Amino acid sequence: MNAPTALSHLAPAIHPRAVPTELIDALKARFATQCSTALVVREQHGRDESSFTVPPPAAVIFAESTQDVADAVTLASAHSVPVIPFGVGSSLEGHLLAVQGGISIDLGRMNRVLSINAEDLTVTVQPGVTRKQLNEAIKSTGLFFPIDPGADATIGGMSATRASGTNAVRYGTMRENVLALEVVTASGEVIRTGTRAKKSSAGYDLTRLFVGSEGTLGVITEVTVRIYPLPEAISAAICSFPTIDAAVQTTIQTIQLGVPIARVELIDANTVRMVNAYARLGLREEHLLLMEFHGSPASVKEQAETVQEIASEHGGHAFEWATTPEERTRLWTARHNAYFAAIQSKPGCRAISTDTCVPISRLADCLLDSVAEADASGLPYFLVGHVGDGNFHFGYLIDPDKPEERETAEGLNHKLVSRALQLEGTCTGEHGVGLHKMDFLVTEAGAGAVDMMRTIKRALDPKNIMNPGKIFTQ
Amino acid sequence: MNAPTALSHLAPAIHPRAVPTELIDALKARFATQCSTALVVREQHGRDESSFTVPPPAAVIFAESTQDVADAVTLASAHSVPVIPFGVGSSLEGHLLAVQGGISIDLGRMNRVLSINAEDLTVTVQPGVTRKQLNEAIKSTGLFFPIDPGADATIGGMSATRASGTNAVRYGTMRENVLALEVVTASGEVIRTGTRAKKSSAGYDLTRLFVGSEGTLGVITEVTVRIYPLPEAISAAICSFPTIDAAVQTTIQTIQLGVPIARVELIDANTVRMVNAYARLGLREEHLLLMEFHGSPASVKEQAETVQEIASEHGGHAFEWATTPEERTRLWTARHNAYFAAIQSKPGCRAISTDTCVPISRLADCLLDSVAEADASGLPYFLVGHVGDGNFHFGYLIDPDKPEERETAEGLNHKLVSRALQLEGTCTGEHGVGLHKMDFLVTEAGAGAVDMMRTIKRALDPKNIMNPGKIFTQ
Repeated sequence: MNAPTALSHLAPAIHPRAVPTELIDALKARFATQCSTALVVREQHGRDESSFTVPPPAAVIFAESTQDVADAVTLASAHSVPVIPFGVGSSLEGHLLAVQGGISIDLGRMNRVLSINAEDLTVTVQPGVTRKQLNEAIKSTGLFFPIDPGADATIGGMSATRASGTNAVRYGTMRENVLALEVVTASGEVIRTGTRAKKSSAGYDLTRLFVGSEGTLGVITEVTVRIYPLPEAISAAICSFPTIDAAVQTTIQTIQLGVPIARVELIDANTVRMVNAYARLGLREEHLLLMEFHGSPASVKEQAETVQEIASEHGGHAFEWATTPEERTRLWTARHNAYFAAIQSKPGCRAISTDTCVPISRLADCLLDSVAEADASGLPYFLVGHVGDGNFHFGYLIDPDKPEERETAEGLNHKLVSRALQLEGTCTGEHGVGLHKMDFLVTEAGAGAVDMMRTIKRALDPKNIMNPGKIFTQ
Repeated sequence: MNAPTALSHLAPAIHPRAVPTELIDALKARFATQCSTALVVREQHGRDESSFTVPPPAAVIFAESTQDVADAVTLASAHSVPVIPFGVGSSLEGHLLAVQGGISIDLGRMNRVLSINAEDLTVTVQPGVTRKQLNEAIKSTGLFFPIDPGADATIGGMSATRASGTNAVRYGTMRENVLALEVVTASGEVIRTGTRAKKSSAGYDLTRLFVGSEGTLGVITEVTVRIYPLPEAISAAICSFPTIDAAVQTTIQTIQLGVPIARVELIDANTVRMVNAYARLGLREEHLLLMEFHGSPASVKEQAETVQEIASEHGGHAFEWATTPEERTRLWTARHNAYFAAIQSKPGCRAISTDTCVPISRLADCLLDSVAEADASGLPYFLVGHVGDGNFHFGYLIDPDKPEERETAEGLNHKLVSRALQLEGTCTGEHGVGLHKMDFLVTEAGAGAVDMMRTIKRALDPKNIMNPGKIFTQ
């Protein structure tokens, strides 16, 4: 495994293509008020949670149906103009930025839950439905959708980035939970991938080709996902540890013993302080593991006892239980607020997020050296992790006006990714490649595999109009 | 959803391409005794468990390394000659048949377990390792590999067909359990897909593109799969039911309640009789559910009690428990012998297997009408099912010399698939498309989606040499 060799992700390559007036006119004729060229609207669709600044798209289409999407893509294709799907704008990796110009298709109005098949544990939604909205819609069925990235992202966006979150250790990621898709292809055709059957060997797995394709192969217009019975019993716990290593070793042993833990999240002491300041949660300011157990009352009790025993052996203490929904919400608020709490701790800052994921046995090796490097750099940072999956995030807080801070942060990430790849891991567990990890992808997958991705892209999108300039250079 | 319109799978299209003497000479020069053109060897590699008869490949290469595979593919590519990967020959759908001529690459000698990472619950093997061999190799670690198609298939072959089996209801299929692959591409290049990290958002999911690609995109030369801790407690049970419907309703309710059952298999009374005759198992000759529960002792007890209660409500009786490994083996032998028991029940017969899979709530609708149709046809058959996944198999036993029996069997399958597709299911849950379900795939996925598969195939294999003529016409 070679070390990544370039830092081209310090600034993305911007090569806007011409967007002819004829196209804008045609879009306005077809979409009337659903098409906006107002600067404020374009700017809102031309940024995300990444730290890059790129000129906005030339127009925004507010799609209300699959036909709207197909028509917008067909028009854009006729002029070889790029198309960028937009959910809520919570990408961390620059997925939404119009680096090659083009138009943004906002899918936020396609936010209907189309069918709930409670007896099959599936639900079909339009792509603009957010994860919280979905859970609200199925609440009365006693079922829930477990995938929970930090933001209240859309199911379409989560499919496009192969998102996961805190429950993935037990319930898997979007990779495991998307059953079927409707997609508008680069030529404006509407296809379906997959069925509602739980498994299938019917040809190439187009569903999983589109899951994680970051809008570069087509626009997702419908998603069927698996949902799960709400566990009979849920119990959450928080446990403090003297060192990060102790928390990590507790996690490793829990997973290796096969405890079906539903969530196990690390928050380092530093981040606990930020969260306390942000939301006055009054948490003990030490390294924490937040855990949740799902199952029957007996099984939850059994799991919790096993983990408590493991934690104690590693010096875990101040075990605090939360069995009521309110107490659980308090604990999980800490985790979900970490990003925003950190951003607020340094006014005007942007976060550069890391997203490495390694085999669980390598987690301590990967994490501890990176903590030492981050501490030595002097940059403020937060550290949270879906440690049960071997995935964690540093968020280095930089002043966007100070290039040297960005350089320091990217240098830390570079070292971290090199380490993760040497440990047989990946540069991105759940955020995607976007603009930010293209060099790392080549190092990780190898030039041959990336060429294969590029070959598929060229075959399915010969005009290179679907979110071009993301995942790999084209 | 339109009904399938053709029965072209009654006989596959055979269009052998020329295999030039220069290629055979070059293969013999490169591979010496690892290359065979003996008729008996070619014939052995020119058939599988499907009911088709096709002329054998022109040569068989016994690959012993990735380099062997790469060299064989490179030579074949230079002459635009097809290449067909061969594991143990247990395909049910004609995957191994040389319908366009070419050479067979036997991967059986690439049967080393390369690394066991017990602490990460992963293992990396060469493609010729069989599932039983793998489990034998990891036995001492307290871990196991759950995917178990009927045959003792190779891990490479199981990856290529996206296989599953009796444990899939709890542990998923090859789709969920393959983490990474090494693949020789159509140009003879060696690439890697994926890492040992449990999750990743690093670019297109090439791993899952190859899983289920049936040898049409490349030759799999290394596979990393997930393995699992052997459950602390295992309990198996058998339960008799007055009707198939009662057994199916018990299954549906078990799944809908979220019981984490590890296995739930249907064997109809007719098949129980065949199995008893084959292996003298002395099972009660009624419709049976075979079940297995994995977990802690308390959780296994709890699950079993829940299911027993559900079964009783549906008239399930003669509940028999098997807690020792020997008793469990006796029960599961019944299931794993079903295919061979059925074949022996009608000397000289071939089985035409169905493989539909539907959402669990549709299982009774799909199954019961098909049983009535099979009974009315007069053809002997067996019926077994991974009913917890909504997947089941009829095996219609035909005399290969009587075309009218084949026609009857294919007619029954045709009706069954039409029904399954109307119920939002798939024509193949785990056997793959091969030669046999190409028409059904078009009906199921739609012409647009199949065209997309074909576009990918053409882009990655421009000479169409990788197992051509399978999955879709080319």
